[in-house]
This record gives sequence, C-alpha cells and structure tokens, in this order.
Amino acid sequence: MIDAGHHLEQMRTTAPLVQNITNYVAMNVMANVMLAAGASPAMVHAREEAAEFAGLAQALTINIGTVSPPWAEAMEQAASAASGAGKPWVLDPVAVGATAYRRDLGQRLLALRPTVIRGNASEILALAGQGAAGKGADAADEVAAAEDAARSLACDTGAVVAVTGEVDFVTDGSRAARVSNGHAMMPRVTVLGCSLTGIVAAFAVGQDAFDATVAALAYYGIAGEEAGGAAFGPGSFQPAFLDALYMLGADEVTARARISEA
Amino acid sequence: MIDAGHHLEQMRTTAPLVQNITNYVAMNVMANVMLAAGASPAMVHAREEAAEFAGLAQALTINIGTVSPPWAEAMEQAASAASGAGKPWVLDPVAVGATAYRRDLGQRLLALRPTVIRGNASEILALAGQGAAGKGADAADEVAAAEDAARSLACDTGAVVAVTGEVDFVTDGSRAARVSNGHAMMPRVTVLGCSLTGIVAAFAVGQDAFDATVAALAYYGIAGEEAGGAAFGPGSFQPAFLDALYMLGADEVTARARISEA
Amino acid sequence: MIDAGHHLEQMRTTAPLVQNITNYVAMNVMANVMLAAGASPAMVHAREEAAEFAGLAQALTINIGTVSPPWAEAMEQAASAASGAGKPWVLDPVAVGATAYRRDLGQRLLALRPTVIRGNASEILALAGQGAAGKGADAADEVAAAEDAARSLACDTGAVVAVTGEVDFVTDGSRAARVSNGHAMMPRVTVLGCSLTGIVAAFAVGQDAFDATVAALAYYGIAGEEAGGAAFGPGSFQPAFLDALYMLGADEVTARARISEA
Repeated sequence: MIDAGHHLEQMRTTAPLVQNITNYVAMNVMANVMLAAGASPAMVHAREEAAEFAGLAQALTINIGTVSPPWAEAMEQAASAASGAGKPWVLDPVAVGATAYRRDLGQRLLALRPTVIRGNASEILALAGQGAAGKGADAADEVAAAEDAARSLACDTGAVVAVTGEVDFVTDGSRAARVSNGHAMMPRVTVLGCSLTGIVAAFAVGQDAFDATVAALAYYGIAGEEAGGAAFGPGSFQPAFLDALYMLGADEVTARARISEA
Repeated sequence: MIDAGHHLEQMRTTAPLVQNITNYVAMNVMANVMLAAGASPAMVHAREEAAEFAGLAQALTINIGTVSPPWAEAMEQAASAASGAGKPWVLDPVAVGATAYRRDLGQRLLALRPTVIRGNASEILALAGQGAAGKGADAADEVAAAEDAARSLACDTGAVVAVTGEVDFVTDGSRAARVSNGHAMMPRVTVLGCSLTGIVAAFAVGQDAFDATVAALAYYGIAGEEAGGAAFGPGSFQPAFLDALYMLGADEVTARARISEA
Repeated sequence: MIDAGHHLEQMRTTAPLVQNITNYVAMNVMANVMLAAGASPAMVHAREEAAEFAGLAQALTINIGTVSPPWAEAMEQAASAASGAGKPWVLDPVAVGATAYRRDLGQRLLALRPTVIRGNASEILALAGQGAAGKGADAADEVAAAEDAARSLACDTGAVVAVTGEVDFVTDGSRAARVSNGHAMMPRVTVLGCSLTGIVAAFAVGQDAFDATVAALAYYGIAGEEAGGAAFGPGSFQPAFLDALYMLGADEVTARARISEA
C-alpha cells in the first residue's frame, strides 16, 4: 500500500532542487507551490544554460503551455541531459492536441523518455494519438475515458502516466491506482495542474516514480480539500491552498489519502 | 437600458474560450479573473500557432504591455484571423504613447479593426494621436479629457472604445455611456485593467459589442466595490476581488450597476 | 543615523517611475509590491524600446533571473542609458554563479556601474569571484560569509552592495550597516528578494544610495514582520505583506527599524 505521508516526508528531507521549464502563466504560482511544500524550485529555460543547469538540478519538469521555438530547443536539450544522467523528468503536455505545433513537439519530447507524464484527460488522449482538437488548457474529456490511452502511453514510453481530474488515474502500464482527493474549486484556479507537475517531480527524486506520483497527487488533493473548506471563492482558495501545502504533516496526509490501487 | 446582469448571465452560459495574447505581468491574474467570472481563457501567442488557435477560440484579446517583435507578428496574424472570421477581438494598448515602437504597433493593430478598444485616458489619447508621451502603464490624464478622442477613434475605426478610470466612458461613435462602479484601491493592484480586457472579450461573444462592454465594466466595478469593502490594502483586495467575480449573481449586478447612457 | 521612515516618506512623495527588466517569475509580484509601497513600476524590456524608456523613467532595475540573449542586450542598453543620464540603477544578480552564461553577463553588467547591487550571500560571493556554483535562486551561504566579498565588490565597482538574508549587510566600501528586520516566512515565498530590488531603486531616486538602501531594507523587513504575525503560512503571508507595505507609515517604520551602523 502506498503511504502518501511517508513519501511527503522523504521529499521534505531531500528538499530537492527542481528545474522547471514551464509556461509564463504558471511560473510564479508553481514556484510558490513548490516552496510551500518544501522543495527548491528553479525556473531556468534559456538555451544558453538549460542543459548545464540540468546537471545541477535533481529533477526537471517540462511544460509546453506557452512554448515557442527557442524554448522548445531548451526543453529538448534539458530533457536529454536529465535522461542521460538518470534524473527524473516530468512532462506536462498542456493543450497538446490544440495545434499542429504542439502535437509535433509533444512527440519529440516523448522520444526523450519522460519519467512521468501528467496531464488532463484531453491531453493524455491527444498525446496517445486518440484525441480530438482540445479546448485550450481545460479538459473536455473525463478521466475515465482516458484510462486506456494512459495505459498504452505508459507501455509505449516506459513512463508513469497520471491523468488528473475529479478522480485521478495513475498507471505505469502494469500497476494502476486512483486518487480521489481534491476539491471542486481547483479547476477555477489557473495553473494548479501545472504546479502539481512540480510537486510530482520533487516527490520522484530518490523515490519509486509510480508510488511517488500517487502520493504527490493525494497530498495535493488533500491540500485542495483543506483550502476548499476555508475559501469563499477561487480568490481566497489560493492563499489557503499554499498554507495547506505548507502546514500538512505526514501523518495527516497518510490518514486522509484516498488511494485505491487497481 | 443596458441590463448588466443579463449580459453576465449570457456570458456564463456561453463560457467562451478566449485566446489572450497579453503581457507577462498580467497572464496569471487575467486567467484567474476570467476563470472566476466563468469564461475559459487560453494564453496562446507563439507565431507558430497563434492564428491557428484563433480559429478554435471564440474571441481574442491583444495587449501590448510587454510586446517584442515575435509577439507583434503573432498579434497581427491572430487579429487578422479573428477579424476575417468575424470573431470579436479587443485591443488593450498598454502605454502605447510611451515609445516609438509602441506607437507604430498600435497603428498597425488598429488597421486590423478591433471590435473593442479598452485603455486608460492616456492610452486612448495617444492612440487617437492626441497624447503626450505616457508615464508607463499608469494614466496621467483624466477620463473626461479623453472623451472626444474616444469618439473620434470610434468613428475612424468602427470599434467600441472604452476609456476606463474613476468613471468609465464607452462609445461607439454615436452611442455613449458612463459607468461609475469601481473602487479607489483598484489602481493600486497591477494588471486589473489588463484583466478587464479579457472580461470585455468574453462578454462580447454573441452579444452586442457596445452593450456587452458597458455591462462588463459595471460587473467588474461592482466586484471591485465588493472587494474594497472587505480589504485592508491592495494585498487582501486581490483574493476578495476574485471571490466577488465568482460569487456575484446576475440580479445583484443588475441592481448595483451604475450606468448612465448619454 | 539613518531615519528609515523619512526615506520612505520621500519615496512616496516622489512616487518615482521605475523601469524594471526582471524575470518572468517576479514581474507581477514586483509590480504589486512597488504599487503597494507607493512607487510607479513599468515592466519594459524589449530591445526596441528599453533604452528609450530608460530616458522616461527615474530609475532602473535589472534582474537576470530568467535572462535570454535578447533580454541581455536590452539590459545592457538600458543600463548604459541610465548610467549615462546619472539615474540610479540596481542590479539583482539572481543565481549568477549557477552557469557560465550568468557569470559572463554578470561581469558585463558590473562594468556598466550599477548604483546598488542587491543579492543573497551566494550571489554576492559569485559576483565577487569568490563563490562556488550556486543552488538555483536560494542562498547556500550565510550573509556573514559574504561581508568581505561585499566590501571588495563595493570598492571595485563604486556600487552600494546589499547582501540580504536573516540579517542584511549593506556597504559602500567605507560605510556599512546591518538591518535585522524581517521574518522567517519570507524565504518560503518566491520573488520577495527580486521585488525588494524595486523598492531599493524607488528609494534611491533623489536620495543618498547607501542611506536609501538601508532604509528600504528596514521598511521591507518590517512589512515582513507585520505579515508574519498575521499569516498561517506562505499563502496568507502574501496578501498580508502587500497590505503592510501599503499601510505602514513613516513614523512606525522609523520606530521599528533595527539598523546598526558599523
């Protein structure tokens, strides 16, 4: 059984330096989310230094939300460096089905063997070649509809695939788990999914990628429940969510995690 | 008489996908403002996909706050696509009078026939060729001083022009209205004007551009009043403002709107 | 003796227009911090206009946190323009020791004679050529370990050098002061250091650079103490911090400043 609190504690002890090549919308919130949780984020994406920095960092995340050609080059270089050094890297294929440019880049990044892929159902379907054109960054499909796509994507790439939504689904192709923590206000706040990708990467440092991903999703969802209980709307949700990421202890996370392994 | 609550309800029913090519400072807040109100924002600006994405989106906003040449190209391509497809697009000419680079770009974008232009008094004066060099993104002129410029800009371009400030002024060249909702704390919080531009675009989908703009301004100002009543300063104003955008219902917006049609 | 409240009052009276070429993570928060304090920030960094805008602004800040080559060019042009016009400019050498690209740029910017350099201990050590490779944007060294490096950097460049951390150290090579205001939650919130750089620049307009820097640090730290007393975690800290920057009066800042001149 996956002990979410144990993995949180391990992450906090490591306090890993995680390099993030992410989108402009997410950068600030993602850094705050990771600091609140106990990781050390660094937003480094210039072609002139991204691969060099990947040598210093303990994990890497790549998010294509607002990608442009110089960033795409840096993404490929940093992902190659991380893969080559055996460091975990997490792919967040934002809106990958929306345009031809994104579809191409998504396939090039897949070839660099991400450790974990985290997306919403529409994104995982698109990445697996089964999706329709997406509706921006918001999912138009249910998680359940993407489970088969997630399994085949995991088998084809060797990655752990996490489809996040009302109930999250995680698989490495053989194992699978569902995480039902979370709160209905979360989709009303931008870049919470993008920021979760950083938490997944931080948990994956020195821990089994499947277990770490499941644990990270549970922890994140519990923080959402905590914030949702205190918030009047998506504005007051945000500070309450960061506070909850900061304050939640390992025991409470273990006790409240709603993980079912399939 | 313009029923602001009715237009809000229509917008929420449509929940339009709005593409935003905006500045780095505004992206996160603008996305949160639009999500809180009930729209679906997408920040897509790369030249490689901006025009293609404009084909998926229901409206477009363009904000020149932190523009650079590749972004300017994407702006022109996306605006052309939106205009060609008859979709509403809103121009936010941030600090357009400040530098030669901005003045030139402002004129090129005007030629692509925005549906609505939203700016502060200094920006509207500059866009109409009547301004002095601006003081960054903050208005150095009163709204009333820009009413004639707004009327002539509307007549010349066919756009609805909204000059926002303590009392907003909206005109399409023949009709005109003033909106006096709002709160004195709003100029102390960055990018609230930029984010309003996204709300205007969301309201304009499937609705008359003049009425939708007036209604959007009233709704936004009421949310500001609500937040201002709850806040101790510009920090606590922000979550309270997003909460208010989320919680305000159509009837309350109709009742509290302070619109005077001229 | 440095009267921190007096310098705050002077800054608010001037309400200086400060141009900031900063990183993507910091932009929004930095603008809000500066607006809350009473300054007028403008984020203008395109090569096409950065130097021209430096002619309008009263001060300039340069932060290399997410620099790339076009931005580096704009930084050098704007810094030259500010230096040439005798306007204060402040260098924030984020993670300058982390990669070769940053080390080179850091030296080129030093040659353009910043008025003030503000960094954490690891950054000041790296800039002075005494550091090891850094751990992203977070300091790996204590302030005290960077005091000699700060003094020699000040002597070599003519800049006021501020090393910020638990107790800040400021020197112009001959004078020196320590500021012990602040709160333990501050390193858990991203870009508070970057944003402080904008406050330092605003204080430096028309005021002695050493005194203004010390006063800005005390004011900022007191706001942190105020927010820390009200916050449950790093999420609620942020709005409380902006509120405190906004509400703190000159007399209170003078009374609470913990400055020791060496």
